[in-house]
Amino acid sequence: MSDFLIAPSILSADFARLGAEVDAVLAAGADIVHFDVMDNHYVPNLTVGPMVCKALRKYGVTAPIDVHLMVSPVDRIIGDFIEAGASYITFHPEASDHIDRSLQLIRSGGCKSGLVFNPATPLHYLDYVLDKVDMVLLMSVNPGFGGQQFIAKTLDKIAQARDIIDSSGFAIRLEVDGGVTSKNIRQIAQAGADTFVAGSAIFGADSYQQAIDAMRQELALVTQ
Amino acid sequence: MSDFLIAPSILSADFARLGAEVDAVLAAGADIVHFDVMDNHYVPNLTVGPMVCKALRKYGVTAPIDVHLMVSPVDRIIGDFIEAGASYITFHPEASDHIDRSLQLIRSGGCKSGLVFNPATPLHYLDYVLDKVDMVLLMSVNPGFGGQQFIAKTLDKIAQARDIIDSSGFAIRLEVDGGVTSKNIRQIAQAGADTFVAGSAIFGADSYQQAIDAMRQELALVTQ
Amino acid sequence: MSDFLIAPSILSADFARLGAEVDAVLAAGADIVHFDVMDNHYVPNLTVGPMVCKALRKYGVTAPIDVHLMVSPVDRIIGDFIEAGASYITFHPEASDHIDRSLQLIRSGGCKSGLVFNPATPLHYLDYVLDKVDMVLLMSVNPGFGGQQFIAKTLDKIAQARDIIDSSGFAIRLEVDGGVTSKNIRQIAQAGADTFVAGSAIFGADSYQQAIDAMRQELALVTQ
Amino acid sequence: MSDFLIAPSILSADFARLGAEVDAVLAAGADIVHFDVMDNHYVPNLTVGPMVCKALRKYGVTAPIDVHLMVSPVDRIIGDFIEAGASYITFHPEASDHIDRSLQLIRSGGCKSGLVFNPATPLHYLDYVLDKVDMVLLMSVNPGFGGQQFIAKTLDKIAQARDIIDSSGFAIRLEVDGGVTSKNIRQIAQAGADTFVAGSAIFGADSYQQAIDAMRQELALVTQ
Amino acid sequence: MSDFLIAPSILSADFARLGAEVDAVLAAGADIVHFDVMDNHYVPNLTVGPMVCKALRKYGVTAPIDVHLMVSPVDRIIGDFIEAGASYITFHPEASDHIDRSLQLIRSGGCKSGLVFNPATPLHYLDYVLDKVDMVLLMSVNPGFGGQQFIAKTLDKIAQARDIIDSSGFAIRLEVDGGVTSKNIRQIAQAGADTFVAGSAIFGADSYQQAIDAMRQELALVTQ
Amino acid sequence: MSDFLIAPSILSADFARLGAEVDAVLAAGADIVHFDVMDNHYVPNLTVGPMVCKALRKYGVTAPIDVHLMVSPVDRIIGDFIEAGASYITFHPEASDHIDRSLQLIRSGGCKSGLVFNPATPLHYLDYVLDKVDMVLLMSVNPGFGGQQFIAKTLDKIAQARDIIDSSGFAIRLEVDGGVTSKNIRQIAQAGADTFVAGSAIFGADSYQQAIDAMRQELALVTQ
Repeated sequence: MSDFLIAPSILSADFARLGAEVDAVLAAGADIVHFDVMDNHYVPNLTVGPMVCKALRKYGVTAPIDVHLMVSPVDRIIGDFIEAGASYITFHPEASDHIDRSLQLIRSGGCKSGLVFNPATPLHYLDYVLDKVDMVLLMSVNPGFGGQQFIAKTLDKIAQARDIIDSSGFAIRLEVDGGVTSKNIRQIAQAGADTFVAGSAIFGADSYQQAIDAMRQELALVTQ
Repeated sequence: MSDFLIAPSILSADFARLGAEVDAVLAAGADIVHFDVMDNHYVPNLTVGPMVCKALRKYGVTAPIDVHLMVSPVDRIIGDFIEAGASYITFHPEASDHIDRSLQLIRSGGCKSGLVFNPATPLHYLDYVLDKVDMVLLMSVNPGFGGQQFIAKTLDKIAQARDIIDSSGFAIRLEVDGGVTSKNIRQIAQAGADTFVAGSAIFGADSYQQAIDAMRQELALVTQ
Repeated sequence: MSDFLIAPSILSADFARLGAEVDAVLAAGADIVHFDVMDNHYVPNLTVGPMVCKALRKYGVTAPIDVHLMVSPVDRIIGDFIEAGASYITFHPEASDHIDRSLQLIRSGGCKSGLVFNPATPLHYLDYVLDKVDMVLLMSVNPGFGGQQFIAKTLDKIAQARDIIDSSGFAIRLEVDGGVTSKNIRQIAQAGADTFVAGSAIFGADSYQQAIDAMRQELALVTQ
Repeated sequence: MSDFLIAPSILSADFARLGAEVDAVLAAGADIVHFDVMDNHYVPNLTVGPMVCKALRKYGVTAPIDVHLMVSPVDRIIGDFIEAGASYITFHPEASDHIDRSLQLIRSGGCKSGLVFNPATPLHYLDYVLDKVDMVLLMSVNPGFGGQQFIAKTLDKIAQARDIIDSSGFAIRLEVDGGVTSKNIRQIAQAGADTFVAGSAIFGADSYQQAIDAMRQELALVTQ
Repeated sequence: MSDFLIAPSILSADFARLGAEVDAVLAAGADIVHFDVMDNHYVPNLTVGPMVCKALRKYGVTAPIDVHLMVSPVDRIIGDFIEAGASYITFHPEASDHIDRSLQLIRSGGCKSGLVFNPATPLHYLDYVLDKVDMVLLMSVNPGFGGQQFIAKTLDKIAQARDIIDSSGFAIRLEVDGGVTSKNIRQIAQAGADTFVAGSAIFGADSYQQAIDAMRQELALVTQ
Repeated sequence: MSDFLIAPSILSADFARLGAEVDAVLAAGADIVHFDVMDNHYVPNLTVGPMVCKALRKYGVTAPIDVHLMVSPVDRIIGDFIEAGASYITFHPEASDHIDRSLQLIRSGGCKSGLVFNPATPLHYLDYVLDKVDMVLLMSVNPGFGGQQFIAKTLDKIAQARDIIDSSGFAIRLEVDGGVTSKNIRQIAQAGADTFVAGSAIFGADSYQQAIDAMRQELALVTQ
């Protein structure tokens, strides 16, 4: 199935040569760049912000940049990322007092919008905004903390999210982030996901190409 | 005078190739790397965090890295930067409930500690901690906002800080950040500063070498 | 149907002569006064507080005053509005750590209590408090921001809230706020709403009387 | 039925001789010690913290200590209570940005974990964490405020929670806190609860033994 | 002396007919309108915001409007008040992380800027911003709380502020707010103040004219 | 000199039998009870609150209870401690937006009021409130963290505070808290302190009597 997207997370890239790293994973077959933004408040870590995103665009990256905001609040920085060249901007519903408006803000800036669900966050935040969401991102680990394994319970949630999306009739991507590897990517896709964030599984591999190819091979085996 | 330090601010560097940029300014004669950390709370911008600092060390940067925390609170992230290879860690006194303790935390991690003063912040925060401070950083623009000019009033404040430092008998660097160029660096040094942060004046120049040389020439004219 | 209430929002009135404005809309047939309280924290705007409500009572307004708190936290100011003569006090469930208690607080002060739902807020906050709620207010725009249009998705939500209310057996008003005009009021009522907040559609009209009459005519066409 | 647990709340004990009080209720037949932690932020009261818990352990208390965190945020203090000898640690889902992680944190410290639901809080926070929860605590009064009566609506919620727990297949205790007395404990148990927090009903009684016995007698009448 | 300004505080006016009230005090000889903005966070009260200020301008008020922000943070709402027609905008230094910038923001919007000092707040916040301040407002009661008397200690502080202003060479008004009446206004002026906020002493009087005249007569007796 | 007061800190007492502990130190010659309140926000620890203070009064403690609030904000809990029988209530100036009012609140409740200075906090917060302060507490360690040593720099600060107090003409106690032992108490008293908080130096001693006697003997050697 050709519509599976592989999204390497820059969290595992070498930040001293980020442009080259991003070029390399794209050359190796990655589809979009997953850009993790942490603010030391919503999560206990601080990563990179709009200036780094803008630098990637200036460097020549033309692939979609998928900005995952692990920040609170979200509205002011959404504007910064629109200007910095983001393609997708997703945020956690608990991190915005006015979820509908934040979604509108993202789309009004010409970007694609999305909501991110922590492992324990119920899916009901989707109830009244399916028409304003281009991506649903399910966390399969807790964001902001290192060294975690894929939370198995996420598979059920993926299936539920898939049902909600399919019933809505809207074209909404279903992304999964956390502990994704070539070992479990087929199962995750089978459950209903179509976009896969992978960090160390790609950037930690000897060959980015081989790592991504291994994932593609697994995805090719997904049945519908 | 050989003890003037020039500290290019990475805020104006190309974040897509940060390692190469830092190498280039150090090769061009810079003394230390000024690393601006913003958290989208203490200032309305989010820049780069500990992972980027650690990446520079891994890339091979051995020069001192001078981390300026524009974040609140500070204590948790101080630990992250100690581990990431910071040399100096400075913070704003208004951003910590327990200034003395934050300073102790930095030193206990083997780093040099400092306090940063916003343009309007009085110097009295130094009253009882001069023995725990290795650097005083005076902001000559408001942190977190772009396109500002050097606030002239800072020159008096530099002179006052210089007096306080000299009277204390401690070896404390006096750094100035904001709108520093080869045009005003001599005046700033003459007022008492010994460490100079420069962003676009260096990274925005055609030649980093020429930009830094121009500053050195001005500094050579400072009289004592 | 005689039980439809029209509630002009003071947000669109002339605050320099608020008493006269309120008198005028009541004389023109309005049923209750919708009083929008914003605190520059829960929403990015600051409007009017308890003293203005009290002034309306002192001025002679005897109609119900329907206070919509767009503030966080809510408990302390609830007491102020009880004392200021509020009739209804509604708040956003996300803005109170202790929703049940805030509702009890309102009723214990002799006022009618309610919960307000932002466009994206799920209705499950009603699950365990239907016996403590006199009004459910559904926002059909995002509160605190100007110039918005009625969010069409709200019609489904009105129907769902209507079902929940009817099933509960409690006498709970169902109010809608945001972009309500004589053009869409019939549809909104048909979906299940019985109380209609209108701002510029009334205060922005040449004749308050004609504006309200036009709404009444539409409401008269609602079938059950 | 032997698996009902009675948990006297230290809130009603004499804090000047807490060790003796706890000894007395345990000698009188109590099963576990309910330890109420309030931080003056999540609730408007401040009670006791980790040092008091540790003192009870040092005093010789070996019964389970069931720590109910009415604090926000929760992660840092969870570590303190693990070290202080807590057996259960429960928190309110609204008080943690990362519920799944907080639950993992508790278990990784060797304690049993749980979620607490305010009277108005929906049960959906359980949707994706039933495998990480050892206790569900339903508040039948609003926490942090004195002199309240059992909220009757809680009985339905207990029944719903019981269904969720039974369907999950996990061994999860169902605790109720607020206004529990020998008068209503049977009804509460009949609805599905198995663990009962009682404060003044025990510590306010002339004889702790008689108070607890009276509860046991009622519980003995519960049918299944 | 002609340069004393009397500034009636709208806090004591009738908010139901605010335009007429303001007209009346100006006709009675008041010089400027003191506009008290409280946000229920920096102080435990919520009063009126930008829309009310704008309504006064639209109503025809041309006198200076002196906006006293008892809010935190201040930067976003400064823009709202600039647009709403404010003449002066003053804020509390503790309420802004970036005092110098907030002052610049006010002036860049064409307004006059100022800092407000709570009764216990030291004057050192003036150390480095005298060139950016058009008004110093000393609170002689605690803002946000009713029914207070003039704090006598303020007289010394007025004299100190007067010295600082005179030494600076800048044209800076020195305003006093809290418990000012015709009984103490001469003493306050004699200490060095030149702008006087009065609430109930004017709006609570039978004749605004007589109240203001009485103050003017006292001020005429001030010696220099 | 008979006016030295020794104030054992309950932080080092056995919380399981706090009444007995307090009785014991008072019987051993302590003058007042130092009661440390931490809220897990102003400092990273949570200790004990008003109910524990009230329990001590009910237990029969008649000595002054000196409540040190390491909490933020302070106003609401001040009322709780007044009702709980506190004698002194002191707070950190950085923890209250309205210092003058918080001081008034304490005195209006019949308690003695005070300000606490962290090691790095300048003394200027005393500038305008000396007439409202009954106690100045200088921290000689950072509050909320264990295992610290007396910060030598505090001796100068004690002398400065002593000068300020003596010049004011008010009867204000000067208390020191942190690392006080019989080894350094004479030096601390010689510098100007008259009230001495000691925790482990008393509660950690084999004999409370001997520990306090040793301190008294040192204090007897203080010259004036």
